[in-house]
Amino acid sequence: MQKGKASIQFEHPAYIVSTASVAGKKEGEGPLGKSIDVVEQDPMFGSETWEQAESAMQKQAADLALEKGDIHRREIRYLFAGDLLGQLIATSFGTVDLEIPLFGLYGACSTMGEALSLGAMCIDAKHGDKVMAIASSHYATAEKQFRFPLGYGNQRPKSATWTVTGCGAVVLSAKGKKGQVKVTGITTGRMVDLGTKDSMNMGAAMAPAAWDTIKQNFQDFGVDEGWYDKIITGDLGEVGKKILLDFMKNEGHDLSEKHTDCGLEIYDNMAQDTHSGGSGCGCAAVTLCAGILPRLLDGTWKRVLFVPTGALLSTVSYNEGQSIPGIAHGVILER
Amino acid sequence: MQKGKASIQFEHPAYIVSTASVAGKKEGEGPLGKSIDVVEQDPMFGSETWEQAESAMQKQAADLALEKGDIHRREIRYLFAGDLLGQLIATSFGTVDLEIPLFGLYGACSTMGEALSLGAMCIDAKHGDKVMAIASSHYATAEKQFRFPLGYGNQRPKSATWTVTGCGAVVLSAKGKKGQVKVTGITTGRMVDLGTKDSMNMGAAMAPAAWDTIKQNFQDFGVDEGWYDKIITGDLGEVGKKILLDFMKNEGHDLSEKHTDCGLEIYDNMAQDTHSGGSGCGCAAVTLCAGILPRLLDGTWKRVLFVPTGALLSTVSYNEGQSIPGIAHGVILER
Repeated sequence: MQKGKASIQFEHPAYIVSTASVAGKKEGEGPLGKSIDVVEQDPMFGSETWEQAESAMQKQAADLALEKGDIHRREIRYLFAGDLLGQLIATSFGTVDLEIPLFGLYGACSTMGEALSLGAMCIDAKHGDKVMAIASSHYATAEKQFRFPLGYGNQRPKSATWTVTGCGAVVLSAKGKKGQVKVTGITTGRMVDLGTKDSMNMGAAMAPAAWDTIKQNFQDFGVDEGWYDKIITGDLGEVGKKILLDFMKNEGHDLSEKHTDCGLEIYDNMAQDTHSGGSGCGCAAVTLCAGILPRLLDGTWKRVLFVPTGALLSTVSYNEGQSIPGIAHGVILER
Repeated sequence: MQKGKASIQFEHPAYIVSTASVAGKKEGEGPLGKSIDVVEQDPMFGSETWEQAESAMQKQAADLALEKGDIHRREIRYLFAGDLLGQLIATSFGTVDLEIPLFGLYGACSTMGEALSLGAMCIDAKHGDKVMAIASSHYATAEKQFRFPLGYGNQRPKSATWTVTGCGAVVLSAKGKKGQVKVTGITTGRMVDLGTKDSMNMGAAMAPAAWDTIKQNFQDFGVDEGWYDKIITGDLGEVGKKILLDFMKNEGHDLSEKHTDCGLEIYDNMAQDTHSGGSGCGCAAVTLCAGILPRLLDGTWKRVLFVPTGALLSTVSYNEGQSIPGIAHGVILER
């Protein structure tokens, strides 16, 4: 059922019946390390290139999610998947062996929100009985794509985030068991561009988009922060979090007790020297599987607004002096 | 309603209530020139960079589709949009002013098929009353992204295609008028990789994906080529078309009378020196709006299987010696 301007409340919520998280060594040493299904010590994932490593990680996460749920890949009607790389090459090569009809998505680091949204829409409409949402990022492919060669050893400003090496895979199903987490609603983000141009401060670029989507969610569902046990953005980091809380405060919403950010959950920023926090499609995806869903399942939280955030820049747009528009996709998770 | 392994037959087909096509000078000089809504003589579209030009073209097409249909942008529930550029920058900057909730898609040149599919799924499910599908490409941004600097003046092999400078925008609606074209079904493609590695022969890379999707469509709906007045692939060009027809013949399907390819419709390959044909997201999108839909509307055809095709490569994957997987999304258009 359409709610307000940009939201849907599902008549037939999608059950999250299986998940898998695969991540790198650094993520394994972070606060979520013990809950991540596979912590791979080899950053190359046994492959010859960084990009193939990311594809291998996607394949591993998808296979594991199927295995954990005792689901055959042929039962998955659609794949909603994406990554950060130009032309989605991590996803193309990572999912080819699955032979599942694929909708390739690009929402930058918001991709897990986009994939869950479209996946849940598909389940709600009975267009599929089971679908899978996948999103990944890899520190080395992202640095190569967006920043500097690793061997260059450049200094990073304190506002920069650290791209998570990780992949999350989530199987959504029309049928589930009592006690499983459901996607009960979504609020789809629009592009928001307040003119931020600093690619080393993506939190600032994305915070206005998170603000826009959360505000819209409150409006569309006629609720406020009190309705949620937690509101969890994707990868705003320390810098973006402050901006979001300020923006929300100006609207009369105090999120200080309710908000956290996947980028602040996945690393111990002080001990792991990750500056503003974690980022990348894998940040929200892994934190969802290894941090958020377990706390919904154990009853710590009952209702979470999960808001992966994306910064829509490329080196081309950046080098041409363009700003960095952001987007954020809201997903309501309930047990 | 789910049909077979990878298809949906819509209970509530989406009406195509408005379209717009905007293209460049070369496309304007081609066989579809007179039917293209706006033929822009300035390849820069009044902008400072090629990428901004492509964004401006998207904005122009979206605005025109709204204007032609007398639709306010606030009536559009979702935007399903994409382009060929890394991190979808043409779309991000092209759609920001529309302020419509956005699902960013990457299916390479198959993007219009992906966008129409998800858009029609959304309409069928009553998740939106009106949605818009947009896909674009620009010769100069694509050459810069995938091939050589324009000033380099490199020679192109005969198997290479010419990236279309063009954008198509399509408004899908739950309500329509008699005589309007509807999206009545879809067959969603999966990644298909037969190991083609020649980036100057994308037709060969994509033909197996087109074959896979068309075959699946026949199987899922229990039909054959006789059911369609026309089967129209995206941008296989001369080379890919031959492969597709051979593959289909081996399966007992003679498509020689029924098949054409947008890449062969949009240019006069001999006169315009475009070698194997046209390509790019804009190729299928513009041919849809300026070539296919008019012939459905005037009764020339009653039922078309539209199959935009995509080659999922990037310069990174290509330079690392990877193959070029393809994908093709089938969309059934009926009047």
